[in-house]
Amino acid sequence: MDKKFQIHCEDGLARAGEFTTEHGTFSTPNFMPVGTKATVKGVDVERLKEVGTEITLVNTYHLWQRPGHELIRDLGGVHSFCNWHGPILSDSGGFQVFSLQEIREVTEQGVHFRSHVDGRKLFLTPELSIEIQEALGVDIAMVLDECPPGDWPHDKTAESLEMTHRWASRSLDSREKSTTNIFGITQGGCYQDLRTQSAEYLSTLPFDGMAIGGLSVGEPKEKMYEVLSYHPAQLPKDKIRYLMGVGTPQDIVEAVYRGVDLFDCVMPTRSGRFGRAFVGGEKPYINIRNAVHGRDLEPLDPECGCLCCRNYSRAYIHHLFRVEEMLGPQLLSIHNLVHYLDLIKSIQRAIREGRYEEMYKQEMDRWATADEKAA
Amino acid sequence: MDKKFQIHCEDGLARAGEFTTEHGTFSTPNFMPVGTKATVKGVDVERLKEVGTEITLVNTYHLWQRPGHELIRDLGGVHSFCNWHGPILSDSGGFQVFSLQEIREVTEQGVHFRSHVDGRKLFLTPELSIEIQEALGVDIAMVLDECPPGDWPHDKTAESLEMTHRWASRSLDSREKSTTNIFGITQGGCYQDLRTQSAEYLSTLPFDGMAIGGLSVGEPKEKMYEVLSYHPAQLPKDKIRYLMGVGTPQDIVEAVYRGVDLFDCVMPTRSGRFGRAFVGGEKPYINIRNAVHGRDLEPLDPECGCLCCRNYSRAYIHHLFRVEEMLGPQLLSIHNLVHYLDLIKSIQRAIREGRYEEMYKQEMDRWATADEKAA
Repeated sequence: MDKKFQIHCEDGLARAGEFTTEHGTFSTPNFMPVGTKATVKGVDVERLKEVGTEITLVNTYHLWQRPGHELIRDLGGVHSFCNWHGPILSDSGGFQVFSLQEIREVTEQGVHFRSHVDGRKLFLTPELSIEIQEALGVDIAMVLDECPPGDWPHDKTAESLEMTHRWASRSLDSREKSTTNIFGITQGGCYQDLRTQSAEYLSTLPFDGMAIGGLSVGEPKEKMYEVLSYHPAQLPKDKIRYLMGVGTPQDIVEAVYRGVDLFDCVMPTRSGRFGRAFVGGEKPYINIRNAVHGRDLEPLDPECGCLCCRNYSRAYIHHLFRVEEMLGPQLLSIHNLVHYLDLIKSIQRAIREGRYEEMYKQEMDRWATADEKAA
Repeated sequence: MDKKFQIHCEDGLARAGEFTTEHGTFSTPNFMPVGTKATVKGVDVERLKEVGTEITLVNTYHLWQRPGHELIRDLGGVHSFCNWHGPILSDSGGFQVFSLQEIREVTEQGVHFRSHVDGRKLFLTPELSIEIQEALGVDIAMVLDECPPGDWPHDKTAESLEMTHRWASRSLDSREKSTTNIFGITQGGCYQDLRTQSAEYLSTLPFDGMAIGGLSVGEPKEKMYEVLSYHPAQLPKDKIRYLMGVGTPQDIVEAVYRGVDLFDCVMPTRSGRFGRAFVGGEKPYINIRNAVHGRDLEPLDPECGCLCCRNYSRAYIHHLFRVEEMLGPQLLSIHNLVHYLDLIKSIQRAIREGRYEEMYKQEMDRWATADEKAA
């Protein structure tokens, strides 16, 4: 049993607990705002604390390219670099590299590709990924994996999975710092036998946590929910479970119900930059650019106490987007992060109070109504 | 004597006092952050207060175009629209219209031009400018004036000045709200006889304050300083004096020395967005994009307590600009506003303590050294 992760209470498959790192403890379930290049876009660290962030995520690939992991290491590590002194998780860099599909070659040893910044030929291996993440000095490092497209056939996906498993083992072997928590990542697409095999194999390795990779990468939502219906429960019960790159508020409520503890997604900040605001009530989100908001003196969400809602009307934010003022994206990023992190707090409370099943059903009903209205 | 403006103490030609509006009082000398489209770019109102802002400026032309002054009026005025409830000054819209030189025609009645947004033919008159500003509900409205290019000959500038004076009088006649303070604007280029004539004529009209227009519009700095050497003192002593669109910290120190009370300029925010940070010490500013800052763990200015300096190193801000993260411009805008508003506080203190002459000489020496270092 891993004492870093403590489960305080369970409600069905949902769990509430906490995970402790060298840079402090975060509660679970939780959501990590994405700080790709060591900044959550448009949000300074004081505001990042204010919205309720407990752990944040940085992208290894981007920091490796610029400013470089050695520079960050020389300057004292990523925490002091970006002045966020709570827990930080980094991805392996694999997802960004595998997005550059035209220019890569995958071998047993690692991935060949060219830098998107300067065209340099680069070679990322499981060992190098851990080395970079340890240079950054993150609290949680992810193993390099191959993330196969959702439309790959069974045999090709199975073959990829075998290599991903060998890479997972090599990643663990390359750890040099005892303070680095390394999380394994299951793959296997939407094939139940492969997901099961991945969960079983990776459960035998001494990871500090387990992640589910390769979901929300373009497959239909039903496919993802099908995997969630059996897969989280296949992972070791005493380890934290992290669903990578997911998702909408609905996805989070669904996944927690299936036993997931940790999430990250660019959605609140990215969709905020483009004018989408998550709100309570019957409509789960609005597009603030729509003309209907041009004379609306109400805040985005009357229930919300964020910087945006306590200061500004929909009419004003509509104006900011219409005239392309940077304050618009800043405010909506903050609002959406608060929406996500308030949801997380509600989820934690519901689990602790033994009424998560009830909350889950209410939320799913609300979303079903919303889908009907949208249809 | 205008009781809205109180001079509490004088030191040479420099004055310290306060100006009272329906939305509160601001101290003088002071500097107005520019909120062109009803937002100081990248700075929310909570931060705007935190940096020490007492009065802000909006641009009539831009708000007239989008979202429209009638809409802002219908929604309760510009203060509640942008949630800044302190004093607000608006320009007349003339400066923006006269910048669109290719497409304008100036008549005695007003200015014909096309909207930069949708190409619509528009006609701005002194009366319409005041009407728009009163619809916005600003505390201080500026008269529409013609701002002649610095290279116009004496006779053409004189002719323009006559019309500007007639427009000033029409502007006053068109005021409908007793709470609107209207400021006159002197013109006359860099011709001393015309500036003198303008000051003398406008002094006879019942303005609530006097502005100096048409400086810092491309003429050499020496020319501007020459006008400042005699012109502010030509304006009524008991009225607030506002130098429009100026300038660098050095310009502000110079103009206060000559008797100016109020300033606005896009410089702190605009140059901040492009990576220039004003700092104390021998070098008046740095370009954070320069490679020399890439490993510098010091803050921009060790004397500064702003959001940026209390959280981040030069190395981090350099990184943000290099990877084009919006947080970089946000932080430098805030830092530069604090630099300007801290300078304003130092100026006020020096005047109150009867040592402005001393401060003036020190600052001018510092800038002279800086110019040598730059040369």
